[in-house]
Amino acid sequence: MVLEAVLVVCGVNSAFAAQPALMPWPSQIDFKSGVLSLDHPLRIEAVGCDARVTHAVDRFRAQLSTQTGNLYRHADPEANDNLPLTIHCASQGLAVQSVNEDESYTLTVESTGAKLDAATPLGAMHGMQTLLQLTEWGPKGWDIPAVAIQDKPRFPWRGLMIDISRHFMPLEQMERQIDGMAAVKLNVLHIHLSDDQGFRVESKKAPRLQQMSSEGMFYTQEQIRGLVIYARDRGIRVVPEFDVPGHSTSWLVAYPELASDTPAPRLVRNDSDKQQPPFDPTNEKVYKLLDDVFGEMAALFPDAYFHIGGDEVDPQYWNKSAHIQAFMKAHELKDADALQAMFNKRLLAIVTKHGKHMIGWDEILVPELPKETMVQSWRGPKSLAVAAKQGFSTILSAGYYLDLMYPASDHYLTDPLSGDAASLTPEEQKRVLGGEAAEWAEYITPENADNRIWPRTAAIAERYWSPASVQDVESMYVRMERVSTELEFLGLKHRANQERMLARLAGATPRDLVSTLAETLEPVKEYERGQTHEFDADMPLNQFIDALSPESDAARRANRLVERVVTNSQDLEAHRDLRRLFERWRDNDARLQKFVGDSWPLQSIVVFSQPLSQLGVIGLQDLDALENYLPVTAGEHADHLDVLKAAETHHNMLQMAITPGIRRMVEAEKLTR
Amino acid sequence: MVLEAVLVVCGVNSAFAAQPALMPWPSQIDFKSGVLSLDHPLRIEAVGCDARVTHAVDRFRAQLSTQTGNLYRHADPEANDNLPLTIHCASQGLAVQSVNEDESYTLTVESTGAKLDAATPLGAMHGMQTLLQLTEWGPKGWDIPAVAIQDKPRFPWRGLMIDISRHFMPLEQMERQIDGMAAVKLNVLHIHLSDDQGFRVESKKAPRLQQMSSEGMFYTQEQIRGLVIYARDRGIRVVPEFDVPGHSTSWLVAYPELASDTPAPRLVRNDSDKQQPPFDPTNEKVYKLLDDVFGEMAALFPDAYFHIGGDEVDPQYWNKSAHIQAFMKAHELKDADALQAMFNKRLLAIVTKHGKHMIGWDEILVPELPKETMVQSWRGPKSLAVAAKQGFSTILSAGYYLDLMYPASDHYLTDPLSGDAASLTPEEQKRVLGGEAAEWAEYITPENADNRIWPRTAAIAERYWSPASVQDVESMYVRMERVSTELEFLGLKHRANQERMLARLAGATPRDLVSTLAETLEPVKEYERGQTHEFDADMPLNQFIDALSPESDAARRANRLVERVVTNSQDLEAHRDLRRLFERWRDNDARLQKFVGDSWPLQSIVVFSQPLSQLGVIGLQDLDALENYLPVTAGEHADHLDVLKAAETHHNMLQMAITPGIRRMVEAEKLTR
Repeated sequence: MVLEAVLVVCGVNSAFAAQPALMPWPSQIDFKSGVLSLDHPLRIEAVGCDARVTHAVDRFRAQLSTQTGNLYRHADPEANDNLPLTIHCASQGLAVQSVNEDESYTLTVESTGAKLDAATPLGAMHGMQTLLQLTEWGPKGWDIPAVAIQDKPRFPWRGLMIDISRHFMPLEQMERQIDGMAAVKLNVLHIHLSDDQGFRVESKKAPRLQQMSSEGMFYTQEQIRGLVIYARDRGIRVVPEFDVPGHSTSWLVAYPELASDTPAPRLVRNDSDKQQPPFDPTNEKVYKLLDDVFGEMAALFPDAYFHIGGDEVDPQYWNKSAHIQAFMKAHELKDADALQAMFNKRLLAIVTKHGKHMIGWDEILVPELPKETMVQSWRGPKSLAVAAKQGFSTILSAGYYLDLMYPASDHYLTDPLSGDAASLTPEEQKRVLGGEAAEWAEYITPENADNRIWPRTAAIAERYWSPASVQDVESMYVRMERVSTELEFLGLKHRANQERMLARLAGATPRDLVSTLAETLEPVKEYERGQTHEFDADMPLNQFIDALSPESDAARRANRLVERVVTNSQDLEAHRDLRRLFERWRDNDARLQKFVGDSWPLQSIVVFSQPLSQLGVIGLQDLDALENYLPVTAGEHADHLDVLKAAETHHNMLQMAITPGIRRMVEAEKLTR
Repeated sequence: MVLEAVLVVCGVNSAFAAQPALMPWPSQIDFKSGVLSLDHPLRIEAVGCDARVTHAVDRFRAQLSTQTGNLYRHADPEANDNLPLTIHCASQGLAVQSVNEDESYTLTVESTGAKLDAATPLGAMHGMQTLLQLTEWGPKGWDIPAVAIQDKPRFPWRGLMIDISRHFMPLEQMERQIDGMAAVKLNVLHIHLSDDQGFRVESKKAPRLQQMSSEGMFYTQEQIRGLVIYARDRGIRVVPEFDVPGHSTSWLVAYPELASDTPAPRLVRNDSDKQQPPFDPTNEKVYKLLDDVFGEMAALFPDAYFHIGGDEVDPQYWNKSAHIQAFMKAHELKDADALQAMFNKRLLAIVTKHGKHMIGWDEILVPELPKETMVQSWRGPKSLAVAAKQGFSTILSAGYYLDLMYPASDHYLTDPLSGDAASLTPEEQKRVLGGEAAEWAEYITPENADNRIWPRTAAIAERYWSPASVQDVESMYVRMERVSTELEFLGLKHRANQERMLARLAGATPRDLVSTLAETLEPVKEYERGQTHEFDADMPLNQFIDALSPESDAARRANRLVERVVTNSQDLEAHRDLRRLFERWRDNDARLQKFVGDSWPLQSIVVFSQPLSQLGVIGLQDLDALENYLPVTAGEHADHLDVLKAAETHHNMLQMAITPGIRRMVEAEKLTR
């Protein structure tokens, strides 16, 4: 099956514009001749499936109507022009969705109708998402091309982790993330429910947690139950995380006596608060509280897995506490790691007692760790390979951190089975269950969260689902842009809210002047923002760094145009487009400057305005040189490199995203001898 | 007061970019030096006002937070850096908002705080909207400039009529129209609740009406009560309209025995159904039903006014009915108009009995009409003047029909007191209470309704509120664009939904190729769509004609650039921009053509693609000619006129909006002798 996919995916790249915007790309797809024309009511019949598929069929009708602008009502039983879509499930699936369930499906579309066969309702739902993505304008109206698809996921654990402790996410926004996940066939929503900044779920056993540590922003148990049903209805498991023994200030605000140190902790609002003690693992009351709350939460979240965090424990509090040191000595625990391993063993007993498998971040991976535990690698892919080798189930998040602002292509080309994992035995590789994209919430708000998560998560979803050989980056970007549109139709606001934020930032300044500059910029990467400017959870997140996409589509296109002209001096279309773009860059600064004095937010980007103009001038000179086979002088070349270097400097936590293209041109300059 | 406004408004036009985006422009505004910096929590105190103002203050905080991206919580009573906003109402206003209430306010903003004084809560709410519109980025953050404003409306009746019979409007969408109306200080929402296509409100006395004539799409009485409260809370009256005796098929489907003719009527779905009989005014049961239902509705809608429609009665059914003819003879009614006048007299008695003033469309204006009736002019401004002269209260809708797709400027320059009304005596002019924008719903859906109504309605609102002298079109467009952004922040979707529709239409075709062509196009005007293509209420409204704005901003800007270069050959900025634009037009066709074959919707616009390219070529030649003082040959000139003529031809109910600019250039060509 993999082979066929390769043949399609690795063909001529430009052909992808004409391909359906499937994401993830199926394991095997054969295009037939003809189309199913969507010009009549649909008669949809589901046989052997369960209520989830019934609901999914209703959503399918609604979503198809929204996507096309036609109204796909239920078929008129008396009419004989209905289009049949027959869905068959071989089994009804499990009461609680499991990581091992068969998600495969086969889909056949012909001019007379479509047929969808699935092992379980999960596959049926995936197949309906494929149908929605196959729907395209044809020469006479909306069509689905005739195809035969055999599809199944490469990895069984395809997740998205969302932190709602640093900044809370309203329930309806979480629901639309689930809609987006289902559209790209992800199947695990991992919610990071507690951290130093807040405890975000109602506990009835320990209500002080939400009362003292949420500022009123938490999900009630009723809401959680609804959310779990909502997710299950879309083929998605919900895994809760309660991060202990570190990242636990929100617990310790409510129960200060359980902390490793005094004074009483306060919720973390900014970096200067960040030195906070973890739980005191020598205090039996800690285990009593965790047993109570984890037991309650284990009942609330039906999934088989339960995440206990376990990352970034600061050893200083344990090391400096006399009674903890005495305890460690008495129990022959040689260091803080060993103490945490003991803590984890106690946790494992609690989590197991409540019927769950325990997961933790890769810091928990120490020799003493019981093998029933699952390890989530975040510090690098190496720990994933080590864990698998040692017999642990494991998933990869290193390389999938959305909050680090890397382009989709970086995440896309990160494979759970590459690097150290590539040399694992097949047996060991099977322990790599998949991966999770992760959105940490220091710098996200309800307004920009969708833009941080989407559309890049769609590319990651393809990595987890599709054959490893599917890795044409250009095709990915073409399809991701289309899927991005589809996600907006589903209700996500990654574009709409960005548009609103940029309109706010432009204010009275003509929008095109602001856009010309802003679309060449991106937020800085990795942890540079936090290192440059102290984190403060109360700071409004309404600046360019908050509104600009992690990855500038305009800049990527500009860099791609440069590649075309540098490698092909006869590519007149690219020459023309680039010339027009460079002229716009060149002319923008003089106009924009008039407005800067009156606008606070423009002041954060104007530092790039003159460099942009200079890059435009260089680009135009290099285009002339390329077109007329003219050399540039060594002095000019050196000047160009200086301009570039200045343009590559980061300012106000922003960086130019078009410099790679200009550097490519400058480095290709033919110098006079 | 008017004089000062003129001085500000008629200054140098380009200065408007720097003016606050106030719309409607206040009666009198004096800018002072300094600003109120919004960098601290607000302490808002309202004295002498009612609950409406309390709610408005909460919305003000929320809206200011949304607009700015800062969070304006309630002030900390212990902090001494709060910014005071003091609101004072001289009276609490009436229990049911009246057309005669004082809506004036004065607003003083200084660097230390703001003070808002109003005669009633209505003025207080208007003043808060002004504050929101005054909020701007300053050099250090969000500011409100120091000002002294004295403001009051020119007309007391400033309305928006929405037809929900032809296409229904969901309740939450109606609510956001009210939000938009409040933002631009409109005060009457007139809902056209029944017509040939549907009866849209629950009747408990005659439930057959909604049961048989709404397809389930109607507002319940509970919802209406909520809507009326929602509107009142925002300073807006709700006037219901039930159109009789014509446009009444939805009544007659439920009560066929009350029709003037058999066979039994069916709801109108398309033009071929359109010949439908009106009520039979000789049947006493008609008055019984109308008494019952109007009585019920008069209680449901507390406003003092009640609209009975009365337009477009087709006399053929009355003329060909033997018993109606006999009745007319017996009662000495010489023609159908006289019969309708008799009908209206009966209606007036019913409406009056239920405590309301009656309004009708201008067809009801016959000599026999009782003077208590109010006349709404739609067929032309003349009937307005006649009505006022004869002693009727009257409002103008002719010139404000949004569904006719005219540009904002046309509506903006239509004054209720221009034309025949200009020669009315001051006493007669007082009877002109104002006007109503009108959105008829043959071609609107929940998806595009916001785009049809906004932002043009903001310009109309300025016409009704601001001094007559405020009529600088360029200033209006600059401010309307800003207000349009504000309206999206309020929740309206005129841009977001259009973006979504255009993305759907583009499908797999690169968006910029589609936009370059589409943004030069507009829907045809007046009634041309209905004349070209038979109305069919079941047809999907998902084509370019449904998605494109009534007025292309891009085309207006292009035409304006042409005006600049033609009148000033030294305007290098305009020359540059125009050259870049013309090149884009010239090059677009060759690229777009590759995608047309596969896309049904593109086929409706591609007919304009080659003409666009030709217009680009002409524009470039004329720019060269202007820049180099070159003549063109008579043959070229003639060719240019031919191309223009072809480009001015309408196709598929679309028309080019950039031809005026190119015509301007071609007509300015200097010919060789």
